[in-house]
Amino acid sequence: MIQTAVLGYGTVGSGVVEVLETNRESIEKRAGEAIGIKYVLDLREFPGSSIEDILVHDYEVIVNDPEVQIIAEVMGGIEPAYTFTKRALEAGKSVCTSNKELVAEHGLELMKLAKKHKVNYMFEASCGGGIPIIRALNSSLTADEIDQISGILNGTTNFILTEMAESGADFDQVLKDAQNKGYAERNPEADVEGYDACRKIAILSSLAYGAHVDYRDVYTEGITKITAEDMKYAKMLGMSIKLLADSKREGERFSAMVCPTMVGKGSPLYSVNGVFNAVFVHGNMLGDAMFYGSGAGKLPTASAVAGDIVDCAKHLGKTVMMNWSSKELERVDIKEVKHAFFVRIKGKMEERLNQVKAVFSNPQTVSVPGLEEEFGFVTECISEEDFAKKAEGLEGIISRIRIRA
Amino acid sequence: MIQTAVLGYGTVGSGVVEVLETNRESIEKRAGEAIGIKYVLDLREFPGSSIEDILVHDYEVIVNDPEVQIIAEVMGGIEPAYTFTKRALEAGKSVCTSNKELVAEHGLELMKLAKKHKVNYMFEASCGGGIPIIRALNSSLTADEIDQISGILNGTTNFILTEMAESGADFDQVLKDAQNKGYAERNPEADVEGYDACRKIAILSSLAYGAHVDYRDVYTEGITKITAEDMKYAKMLGMSIKLLADSKREGERFSAMVCPTMVGKGSPLYSVNGVFNAVFVHGNMLGDAMFYGSGAGKLPTASAVAGDIVDCAKHLGKTVMMNWSSKELERVDIKEVKHAFFVRIKGKMEERLNQVKAVFSNPQTVSVPGLEEEFGFVTECISEEDFAKKAEGLEGIISRIRIRA
Repeated sequence: MIQTAVLGYGTVGSGVVEVLETNRESIEKRAGEAIGIKYVLDLREFPGSSIEDILVHDYEVIVNDPEVQIIAEVMGGIEPAYTFTKRALEAGKSVCTSNKELVAEHGLELMKLAKKHKVNYMFEASCGGGIPIIRALNSSLTADEIDQISGILNGTTNFILTEMAESGADFDQVLKDAQNKGYAERNPEADVEGYDACRKIAILSSLAYGAHVDYRDVYTEGITKITAEDMKYAKMLGMSIKLLADSKREGERFSAMVCPTMVGKGSPLYSVNGVFNAVFVHGNMLGDAMFYGSGAGKLPTASAVAGDIVDCAKHLGKTVMMNWSSKELERVDIKEVKHAFFVRIKGKMEERLNQVKAVFSNPQTVSVPGLEEEFGFVTECISEEDFAKKAEGLEGIISRIRIRA
Repeated sequence: MIQTAVLGYGTVGSGVVEVLETNRESIEKRAGEAIGIKYVLDLREFPGSSIEDILVHDYEVIVNDPEVQIIAEVMGGIEPAYTFTKRALEAGKSVCTSNKELVAEHGLELMKLAKKHKVNYMFEASCGGGIPIIRALNSSLTADEIDQISGILNGTTNFILTEMAESGADFDQVLKDAQNKGYAERNPEADVEGYDACRKIAILSSLAYGAHVDYRDVYTEGITKITAEDMKYAKMLGMSIKLLADSKREGERFSAMVCPTMVGKGSPLYSVNGVFNAVFVHGNMLGDAMFYGSGAGKLPTASAVAGDIVDCAKHLGKTVMMNWSSKELERVDIKEVKHAFFVRIKGKMEERLNQVKAVFSNPQTVSVPGLEEEFGFVTECISEEDFAKKAEGLEGIISRIRIRA
């Protein structure tokens, strides 16, 4: 029997316990040995629950018990998770986590520490919940040079955007609904401002490019300014608005951004709705591939953590190689990045179109019935810098949304 | 340097050489050592090509060379691939293959042989070309009990069905076009009769259920009887027709079938078009996940073979565990399997609807402008046996297509 401990008995932690208990038999078969849970760490009490007898409040009990070989860190946040993880690895215990903040901030260091102690630091659950993208990048697409990775990486914002598109309601109202239903947190900032997706695309880019992509280098815009009117224009254009995380590598340079993006029907990301997530990968040999699944949720995320536990159990005493190195890639300045832009502008089309044409070549116009005092247009593919300059020369711009080429 | 040999210099074989050469540097990094190609085996000559100097015609040269540690078998067909693979494994060489006929027929035996000799038999490229589904089932979704696996597993038929839906042309004409473009073989039977998809779903089911699913136990129908008129009805119903491979497990029983199926817009499989493939997996913890990518094509398939070579290189001297056992599951008789059916029937709706209603409860009718001498209806979800009996009692049935619930 291989003994484990679960740090944190919140949503994911209780899910990990449930997965390991429910699928005990098949997990034993896959791991080659039974997986036991010796401890659950939490500050709270859970009287009457199934884990009552294995609940501890003191991490020392776990880290000093040589029987514990694998630890699931599902607490979230930087501290005390960071310290606990370091101590576990130093004590020769593998760690599996769903903690994207910690992985984005200290992942490289923790992987190196794991290697030094011949154990593993695994984080399949940190990106895209139940979507097995990390192991795919790490063990499957190993004959490819990945030059693009992008996707819908946050379930909360995708749920909100899907609801806005379907109901016609505004952001604030849909957010409130989502909070009441438990799909958004009371403090939704990390999700709606794009910080969560930003960390995830940094982690995925690091693994895909075999380098270190710092999340602070990812240009990030949230969805709080998206309106019901924007949704109407998107519909007229046959597109949907997604919080897209997008990263490209060209030689020794990379660019990465998270922002609301209009996605056309031709893209497999167009119809990824609700709390589902999808990660799109382009390899120089593989071409396009996409991974789709529940982006969040107790059991899908817990299933990913438990899958990592099985992998750690299969690799006791051996560190599985990860393609994330300290090599730095040069960051392309956001100013240089090119897209088409969708722009909304005040005024009547017949009165203002010539002004628009004087600034943007070849604008493709669009108007929405009922919105008589404004219209929209789509630009050619131009750089962010170019767009910003041109936009300065045009009065009455209401909003702009990038379009995925 | 780890030396390999490539058996067969056809489309996939030349692709494997190209992948290993183009991405030499990143592959070395991932494998932990350089991967060399010492031999290419083919009966033909390739004067002037880059492999001229390493081309051999005699397998003995390869199998007797102790330097060769990994062999890519990309010849296809049962013999001589089966004999060559056995001899390679017995000689302590790992084998990676794209050969689904061989894997479906002798996979279990070859995996056992590999284990005996502490080498690996890997076949990521055998199902869904570049889609990394085998390793996902094997190494990622290990904490889940997979109870359903289904998908679009054949690129040729999906290309044909997509073209038929878009152009309105009939099967024979689109097949001819596809043959001229190189998307279908001169002898298209294995693809259009569903034999290829049948082998793939048997392989995937075996891995997903940890048992042995014999491809002969998969009920298989091809797409040759699908007509332009069927496509019109599908469109009216808001569905697309796909050659769907579908397999379900309930306890110790399984059912598996390959047949043309109408898929609704709610399914992520609805918009998988052209030569793309997708595999949909349901796990008891994970919920729904989908993997999407190029189902065929030289480089995507070769990328999967090369990925297996990297994995073999990382596991020299150690057999990676596969969850495919000789355990037999009881096959559910096809008669018991339930779906809704779409049925086309001769005559005018107003004249015949009562006859239909006398046989099928609650038929949902549909008619297509221009097809005045017939109409269609959708049945409730009933068993195959029930449907067959009822259909016998109704004259003038033109065709029936199963609907994915």
